[in-house]
Amino acid sequence: MRDLTNRRIVLASRPEGRPTRENFRIEDVSVPEPGEGELLLKVQYLSLDPYMRGRMSTAKSYARPLDLGEVIVGGTVARVVRSRHPGYAEGDIVLSYSGWQTYSLSKGEGLRKLDPAAAPVSTALGVLGMPGFTAYSGLFTIGRPQPGETVVVAAASGPVGATVGQLARIKGARAVGIAGGPEKCAYVRDELGFDAVVDHRAPDFAERLKEACPKGVDVYFENVGGAVWDAVFPLLNPFARVPVCGLIAWYNSTGPFEGPNRLPLVMRDVLSKSLTLRGFIQTEFVSQLPDFYRDMSAWVREGRVRYREDIVNGLDHAPEAFVGLLEGRNFGKLVVKVDETA
Amino acid sequence: MRDLTNRRIVLASRPEGRPTRENFRIEDVSVPEPGEGELLLKVQYLSLDPYMRGRMSTAKSYARPLDLGEVIVGGTVARVVRSRHPGYAEGDIVLSYSGWQTYSLSKGEGLRKLDPAAAPVSTALGVLGMPGFTAYSGLFTIGRPQPGETVVVAAASGPVGATVGQLARIKGARAVGIAGGPEKCAYVRDELGFDAVVDHRAPDFAERLKEACPKGVDVYFENVGGAVWDAVFPLLNPFARVPVCGLIAWYNSTGPFEGPNRLPLVMRDVLSKSLTLRGFIQTEFVSQLPDFYRDMSAWVREGRVRYREDIVNGLDHAPEAFVGLLEGRNFGKLVVKVDETA
Repeated sequence: MRDLTNRRIVLASRPEGRPTRENFRIEDVSVPEPGEGELLLKVQYLSLDPYMRGRMSTAKSYARPLDLGEVIVGGTVARVVRSRHPGYAEGDIVLSYSGWQTYSLSKGEGLRKLDPAAAPVSTALGVLGMPGFTAYSGLFTIGRPQPGETVVVAAASGPVGATVGQLARIKGARAVGIAGGPEKCAYVRDELGFDAVVDHRAPDFAERLKEACPKGVDVYFENVGGAVWDAVFPLLNPFARVPVCGLIAWYNSTGPFEGPNRLPLVMRDVLSKSLTLRGFIQTEFVSQLPDFYRDMSAWVREGRVRYREDIVNGLDHAPEAFVGLLEGRNFGKLVVKVDETA
Repeated sequence: MRDLTNRRIVLASRPEGRPTRENFRIEDVSVPEPGEGELLLKVQYLSLDPYMRGRMSTAKSYARPLDLGEVIVGGTVARVVRSRHPGYAEGDIVLSYSGWQTYSLSKGEGLRKLDPAAAPVSTALGVLGMPGFTAYSGLFTIGRPQPGETVVVAAASGPVGATVGQLARIKGARAVGIAGGPEKCAYVRDELGFDAVVDHRAPDFAERLKEACPKGVDVYFENVGGAVWDAVFPLLNPFARVPVCGLIAWYNSTGPFEGPNRLPLVMRDVLSKSLTLRGFIQTEFVSQLPDFYRDMSAWVREGRVRYREDIVNGLDHAPEAFVGLLEGRNFGKLVVKVDETA
């Protein structure tokens, strides 16, 4: 094992606004030997997700910021290549949080064994993983769509948005997706089966969204912010629920934001329409994970929830793929295939 | 009965910004005879409440705007002076929604009989009425204060705020009030027993509020908006709850509001701290009314919930009292004694 090299990508500098490749640095270091009770993991797939942008800044958040020089965090699917832990054998495939690197040591904490026969293992990073669970927990616990209600979600071709719309339909609600460009819109409507889809690049986007929601909006699953928020907010019905799980349009902004100050009018509507705005991260709802695995595995198996992956080959391409993610250039769940021989 | 005159106050014009006396008009009309199944009510007390400002505008709200020339709405305590309704006898005292006038006809719908021996009847407009129930339902259903948590409420000498703080303490939480001026602050601290009180007129208000909340804020019962919101919002703890029942500081504003746009940073905190903002009106929680009457009557009787009334004599003074209410000039629940002979 002494000859193995761990390639890792660390935070070289903090982005101002949009991240660039210069904010990342690739390093090669030797792979340490696992001690007693430890495992050596070889990463197969790395998940790229918008929340990572937040960890690169020092702004107060639910998680501590990355230090400069620290390996970028991220969910991974990995293979156990050496085990000195009684619970794991070489060859086991696990969900881990190894980050942007090719190897990592683990004491076995926080790992989850995956069954490659049950589903493609990369789905543990998408529809059967954190993004799928974000959709499931946020929509069902906070959004609570009722039959006949209208649910709107943006980034509807992405792993969270795609799942939100399909789950809304399973509950008997009407799903309206927002996506960028004709190809993604066609996918959301034709492959995912949303009731309507609106292209946020259309010059008359707000007007089209209104037409797509003739009975208003009862649940807005907020994962983008920005101009989409501005278009959806006036359509909210009394007692509408807004689970807030992401604000990608505002992540890269450094502020102060140009006036007028929209807050008083938003709060006025919160009051006059008895709206609920509720931020969340899925870790809050871990007690629902067994239900999630049971329900979502069945729905995926039955074809009631479909998903799409956007696979990038090679860890070295992670920074540019991540920059593209924040610009909406991916199409489906963005995953880096780290072990190209797997 | 034909000789009776009904004095009533109607909406003469819609206020731009702050209402003035010119927005109101006093009219004298004859009192109609009650028909079969009807009651004639003589108003004893009229409640003045901030929500009335909203009804004077055409802005979309949970209730339809008043028409020009229409009697201003309002909760009242009234005496039955003539009854052709089997459920009511002359002399009965009822809670009604007669509005700004001295007499009104009723078919008996929406009335509630009051027991003058149980509590002063004017409390049906305050601590044992709509303001008390707003505090009770919003704090317990949305705010859900836990023992040891910190609850902040503004307008803490007013009927909603005073009740919120005292209920928070009954639940074992720490109550921090915000009020205007030394007299109101002393009342909130010494008479109502809040754990701390901060004067929003102090030049270092935000700093003092922070000192009064060393463990941050878990529940902010929002009934004012404006500068108080700006001071409280940064102090909210992760998973804090913000029941929104009023925004008096913004009611008179016509907008657009000066920048910068605070909305993106507020939404960022909603996300990163998993905050809940929830607008409500107490009518949503009517099923809790029996619990409210039971609990609050007991707490008032035991002296665990105290209240203060600010009584104005004579219906003609209602407009100027209402203008003062929006400027915080009242001290306690503002009630007009309409029948000065009662």
